[in-house]
Amino acid sequence: MFNEILQGLVKQSGGGVGAVLMGYDGIAVEQYLEPIEGLDFQMMAVEYANVLKEIKKTVEILDTGMMEEVAIKTERFFVIIRALTDEYFLALTLERRGNFGKGRYLMMREAPKLLAALS
Amino acid sequence: MFNEILQGLVKQSGGGVGAVLMGYDGIAVEQYLEPIEGLDFQMMAVEYANVLKEIKKTVEILDTGMMEEVAIKTERFFVIIRALTDEYFLALTLERRGNFGKGRYLMMREAPKLLAALS
Repeated sequence: MFNEILQGLVKQSGGGVGAVLMGYDGIAVEQYLEPIEGLDFQMMAVEYANVLKEIKKTVEILDTGMMEEVAIKTERFFVIIRALTDEYFLALTLERRGNFGKGRYLMMREAPKLLAALS
Repeated sequence: MFNEILQGLVKQSGGGVGAVLMGYDGIAVEQYLEPIEGLDFQMMAVEYANVLKEIKKTVEILDTGMMEEVAIKTERFFVIIRALTDEYFLALTLERRGNFGKGRYLMMREAPKLLAALS
């Protein structure tokens, strides 16, 4: 169930290299990866879980409403992260040639299914 | 010079509440703020500087190319952050009714001017 959704995100977004459903503790529930050179996706996911934990804490301190989405653009990749619950988030990594907007849209569309399956 | 550009970002983006040119150490070079209720923009900027430092470190560890842009969406705000140099970044906060795409575009357009003035 999870794997099918994650695979769909990577395949349909164009330029997708990996999707992961993960806890803020850095432990993945499920992931789907396209092997690409020079990227340790596992390590990437764990590092981003740390970053996200920081952002979540910041948003809570500032009291600016729940964190919904974080997007990070580097020279090589887009990373789109969507908060699902207080414990889990969904992350999608795309190559820069990928379709950022479509990736975001697909994550928004699939989030309710993941949420339903999580609870 | 800086102030004019920051004010332009806030005024022209639609729903803009504040723009800041800041070091990763959390010290602002210049900022322009619209006073809005229930938001300590100063504190917000410092907190986000911390987050950004984390992201920058992560991006460096992962070797995925330089960090260019980070966007954070919470229930109440959009925060768009653009890396300028190794020491400075530009942040723009919009209310949720604001125009995220226009804010991003304006930041991209103004970045070279800020860069030139910084060096």
